[in-house]
Amino acid sequence: MNDIREHDFTVGEVPGVLWSPPSARSGTPLILMGHGGGNHKKSPAMTGRAQLLLAAGFHVAVIDAPGHGDRPRTAHDEQEIAELYRARAAGEPEGPIVVRYNAHLAAQAVPEWQSALDALQKLPEMDPEAPVGYYGINMGTAIGVPFVAAEPRIKAAVFGLHWPDALAEHARQITIPIEFTMQWHDEHIPRESALTLFDAFASKEKTLHANAGKHKELPRFEAASAVRFFTRHLSV
Amino acid sequence: MNDIREHDFTVGEVPGVLWSPPSARSGTPLILMGHGGGNHKKSPAMTGRAQLLLAAGFHVAVIDAPGHGDRPRTAHDEQEIAELYRARAAGEPEGPIVVRYNAHLAAQAVPEWQSALDALQKLPEMDPEAPVGYYGINMGTAIGVPFVAAEPRIKAAVFGLHWPDALAEHARQITIPIEFTMQWHDEHIPRESALTLFDAFASKEKTLHANAGKHKELPRFEAASAVRFFTRHLSV
Repeated sequence: MNDIREHDFTVGEVPGVLWSPPSARSGTPLILMGHGGGNHKKSPAMTGRAQLLLAAGFHVAVIDAPGHGDRPRTAHDEQEIAELYRARAAGEPEGPIVVRYNAHLAAQAVPEWQSALDALQKLPEMDPEAPVGYYGINMGTAIGVPFVAAEPRIKAAVFGLHWPDALAEHARQITIPIEFTMQWHDEHIPRESALTLFDAFASKEKTLHANAGKHKELPRFEAASAVRFFTRHLSV
Repeated sequence: MNDIREHDFTVGEVPGVLWSPPSARSGTPLILMGHGGGNHKKSPAMTGRAQLLLAAGFHVAVIDAPGHGDRPRTAHDEQEIAELYRARAAGEPEGPIVVRYNAHLAAQAVPEWQSALDALQKLPEMDPEAPVGYYGINMGTAIGVPFVAAEPRIKAAVFGLHWPDALAEHARQITIPIEFTMQWHDEHIPRESALTLFDAFASKEKTLHANAGKHKELPRFEAASAVRFFTRHLSV
């Protein structure tokens, strides 16, 4: 990334990365990004979205989720991943396993995100008063919805592509502006489930983007839409 | 509008307006816009959207719908409008009246749009080979969906805020890229009805934008989204 400052950090056991744009100054907002399942903080989806956000003048930070990236897998992680692969191979629905495993990871990841945000706001290059947003789909939503529900420092969030089962109760506590994305022909998440999760957010300002296509066919232009959403709500 | 050329025209009995940007050249795409019920070709919603489209380099044309703007109202128009006001005052649902009246207007308006497009493509400032889009919500969708279903010259369309009753059969004939907007708390159009109409489009590329709020609370940023949609699909 040209002219971008990359700052690798560790908070407790959790490795993360902060990218800062050349335009960074007092007041520059920070976007926290949660990566997807099986992925990590510097995966192409993260660096691609980060580039768009950095070009729009945001700081961007990502941490590795439990059992992901540079973090060790526990026996429980291995067991759940094996179970997911088994269900996939058998043509069984993967929803129940993903929902259960992601909720387990979220219980650990929410306090990790809070500590990471504490540490990020103390860095010399960061303004602790600047607005903070959260952007995560798939597992980034499974962790992000309970995190945002618990964290009043987050002022706008982009979510999507998850089930309501473990998340709707948290979504009902969220009142900040939300952009939520779903796939109209998702083979894993039933249409009604996605609509139910979107409906659960208590936010006065919320937008659903539903695109034709299967689970993995989320159009690239939704990332640019997320950046505009954060610019609308967080720019100072 | 600065540096914009405004060209008032009449095709048969139908008055219309063509706005052209200073950047117009061979290949500049044309967006046809359909206005809402009770409105007209130069209403603020039309000129506001036109300004965004012109700034993005599109030609924009609008015609008055039957019984609207500079066109005479028939006894049937007066009767349907009176019935709509009566239902509103009585707190009765206006959907059945709007659906019926708009379908009546669409039967007349579809061939009018086709003739208008014929005439527009013959103007010296227009390139008959340039791509054409259609943009209309509310009554602009009631007329636009059957028009686009019947008109192969339209290559991308933005619709929204209408019922499926008279439109789903036409939507099933439409395969071009679509952006469709609905209001999540629409007091006139049930949520399920809006989702049913979106679902009916046969387009491989289609996007639903659902925003929190009532029927008349469609956010302004959806107009900018429509412009980006046309830029993505029609720019040459």
